[in-house]
Amino acid sequence: MSWKHRHLLDIKSLDKSDILTVIETARQFKAVGERSIKKVPSLRGKTIVNLFVEPSTRTRISFELAAKRLTADIINFTASASSLQKGETLKDTAKTIEALNADIFIVRHNACGAPHFLSRFLDASVVNAGDGAHAHPTQALLDVFTMIDHLGDLEGKQVTILGDILYSRVARSNIWALKKLGAEVTLCGPPTLVPRIFEQWGCKVTYDVDKAIQDADIINLLRIQHERQRHAMFPGIGEYKTLFGLNKERFRHTRPEVLIMHPGPINRGVEIDSEVADCERSVIMEQVTNGLAVRMAVLFLVSGGQSSQIESSD
Amino acid sequence: MSWKHRHLLDIKSLDKSDILTVIETARQFKAVGERSIKKVPSLRGKTIVNLFVEPSTRTRISFELAAKRLTADIINFTASASSLQKGETLKDTAKTIEALNADIFIVRHNACGAPHFLSRFLDASVVNAGDGAHAHPTQALLDVFTMIDHLGDLEGKQVTILGDILYSRVARSNIWALKKLGAEVTLCGPPTLVPRIFEQWGCKVTYDVDKAIQDADIINLLRIQHERQRHAMFPGIGEYKTLFGLNKERFRHTRPEVLIMHPGPINRGVEIDSEVADCERSVIMEQVTNGLAVRMAVLFLVSGGQSSQIESSD
Amino acid sequence: MSWKHRHLLDIKSLDKSDILTVIETARQFKAVGERSIKKVPSLRGKTIVNLFVEPSTRTRISFELAAKRLTADIINFTASASSLQKGETLKDTAKTIEALNADIFIVRHNACGAPHFLSRFLDASVVNAGDGAHAHPTQALLDVFTMIDHLGDLEGKQVTILGDILYSRVARSNIWALKKLGAEVTLCGPPTLVPRIFEQWGCKVTYDVDKAIQDADIINLLRIQHERQRHAMFPGIGEYKTLFGLNKERFRHTRPEVLIMHPGPINRGVEIDSEVADCERSVIMEQVTNGLAVRMAVLFLVSGGQSSQIESSD
Repeated sequence: MSWKHRHLLDIKSLDKSDILTVIETARQFKAVGERSIKKVPSLRGKTIVNLFVEPSTRTRISFELAAKRLTADIINFTASASSLQKGETLKDTAKTIEALNADIFIVRHNACGAPHFLSRFLDASVVNAGDGAHAHPTQALLDVFTMIDHLGDLEGKQVTILGDILYSRVARSNIWALKKLGAEVTLCGPPTLVPRIFEQWGCKVTYDVDKAIQDADIINLLRIQHERQRHAMFPGIGEYKTLFGLNKERFRHTRPEVLIMHPGPINRGVEIDSEVADCERSVIMEQVTNGLAVRMAVLFLVSGGQSSQIESSD
Repeated sequence: MSWKHRHLLDIKSLDKSDILTVIETARQFKAVGERSIKKVPSLRGKTIVNLFVEPSTRTRISFELAAKRLTADIINFTASASSLQKGETLKDTAKTIEALNADIFIVRHNACGAPHFLSRFLDASVVNAGDGAHAHPTQALLDVFTMIDHLGDLEGKQVTILGDILYSRVARSNIWALKKLGAEVTLCGPPTLVPRIFEQWGCKVTYDVDKAIQDADIINLLRIQHERQRHAMFPGIGEYKTLFGLNKERFRHTRPEVLIMHPGPINRGVEIDSEVADCERSVIMEQVTNGLAVRMAVLFLVSGGQSSQIESSD
Repeated sequence: MSWKHRHLLDIKSLDKSDILTVIETARQFKAVGERSIKKVPSLRGKTIVNLFVEPSTRTRISFELAAKRLTADIINFTASASSLQKGETLKDTAKTIEALNADIFIVRHNACGAPHFLSRFLDASVVNAGDGAHAHPTQALLDVFTMIDHLGDLEGKQVTILGDILYSRVARSNIWALKKLGAEVTLCGPPTLVPRIFEQWGCKVTYDVDKAIQDADIINLLRIQHERQRHAMFPGIGEYKTLFGLNKERFRHTRPEVLIMHPGPINRGVEIDSEVADCERSVIMEQVTNGLAVRMAVLFLVSGGQSSQIESSD
């Protein structure tokens, strides 16, 4: 269980044992969050930069708090206030920040591949916090951490991902992680948003939501993201809700032990009804808690930490 | 002098001894701000969130610095950059942040009652940093702390609050605190902004500014807030200044030992003239200093701290 | 080598030994940035405020990180979110922040003289982070630190500053620092942006770029700042590039050991070509690293620290 990666760019580059190392490390850091003093000195004196060229609050805060709980110094650098608007290239911006002796860049960018590009010339570590529709590896890691916490080994488990798959980096990273862990993945949503090409990734594709959810061990709902769909890819919110929304009636036909997951923020009454979001099978809030622990683990591991070295208190 | 509240939502819920406990605790924290090393480890490893759904700089900074001086980790979450704009409910936003093991929410919101609403389902503590025209309890606590510092017991003291009472959460919270401490409160301002209904709170209401200020031990001026008055409630700034502004001439007819207070930011030449704002009876800057100490005290007390336990250094 | 200044407002007020004290102190702090734990406790428990009334990311982050590496508490106060928009005066804003027991104000403002103005009535220290076209002293200090690091004593060295001199606080502060250290300064750029009046500062002024750069030990390129030139002061970017841009061909006629400097962010293909920006004579990234060290030194020195007292670890 040793970690060898300087960056975390996507799930594709990890093997099964890497994923399990992150989860094992995250489990230890999750315990830190339950203490009265929620802090360990593991990354004291390190400089971490949140380089967010696409707006985000939830993910940024999760990483910011992860860094603080590890006693690192963290700087927020967001594009709206940045030199990027003055015509500087992304490479120059990153090199400039690195010259401040930055140790880790947490990068969110609307262009696919931006974190990979930066990792090619930076000596610092790069952690992908979401790039275009490509990858969101910490989201996938927190999702499988949550699944394993409830179901144990995922080998052969039935996972249905429901919603806008085409534009979703969450879906792509989840598919990679789930396939590496041996789960069976079914994708479902409007045909315009769930192209058959995903069958080549080893997923089942179906447009029949009732069929997609009836045998699932886990249903992972994706947010309908209006902001990414410039050309309407489905008739409307109302129709989406009717055809694919996980409502009380549909939920009644799922397995009694099914886990309901969602990366948040949720649209109540659109992709999920409140009765489902708030029921005891929903682990949406656990995903948030696990996300912080996973991000602590990733920051720790890319810095060269080994999970056996986690100090027990500050 | 023991504190039993998990939240600070308004002054109404406090009794006199609670108010005095905050002031006594604040007095000790004020001394921390006068040291070379302005820091105590009282809340080390706690996570505090500034959840500001209405813009504010002064109050946010005061709380942020209070948290830092107590060695807590603080995260700023402001609505403009937040998921709130993506249609997430306030409850879901707060539950999500709480899932990051947040210990205290400092909440500012333009809707009256938002902090109360959150306190009903959060396990974390909620501190109201201003909700609509309803309450701003830390402002009232810093105001009475400042008054007591100068005048001792407020029993029977004459306090005049001058300005826009109707839309002012500062006024409402001050009235509650002053009545609990036994002071006599007179409200004065344009009739449209000082309705007679406040007499039912035990206040005197008058539209004669010269009468309102002549016997006052304390004059607390409120900011004329253009941004909250969509429909003009008074003819104009010029007329307000002439009819109610505390200018040099009016100030000459006040008691020689009167205290001049203002929650800031002040509009020089509107509700207060520079000669008055900067005179030796003005304690406006002391209010700011006391505000930081009061906020440290409140964060400490809602976390279960007792004033006898304040550690003397970091 | 002792420092006596409570503020750092401009280079004009410093003498040669002050400049050398900053550089010597910065050299020690630069070593902190190369350690695994990049932190010293020198300013623990101090409160530092970034008061930025003009947008900036790079300089703000450099100061913020400098404060954090010195273990100070730092608060960001930017004008866009501030009371300044509610009509409060700059003086009142600053006095209010100082009442939070602030120790150091780092001030950026679009009005020349704003930091000097604040220094007249604040008890806290004021560090100028750029005021209008007037001064940017930490930029000049990091520039001469970088020059001395490579060339040793600057006495008699030929420094060419190329670009928009008229509107540049960087140029003005550099000229002051370089003259105090005995360097020869040549200014070059379009006649509308490099008026002859600078000859009275002891500089050579020329409009012949090839002549200006051929004997230079150092070429310091300034950014073409569109945002400051409301009335076009030169025909256009294309013409500027042709007439004054440091391209490969022009660079071939410089001395082989010339240093290429730029305060950043650079406009590749405008004032500098990529071949030059990225060549081994370019020290642009070193300037960034040295800037952080210089800012740590300045914060330390204005707080009363002596360079002999820098603690070796946190």
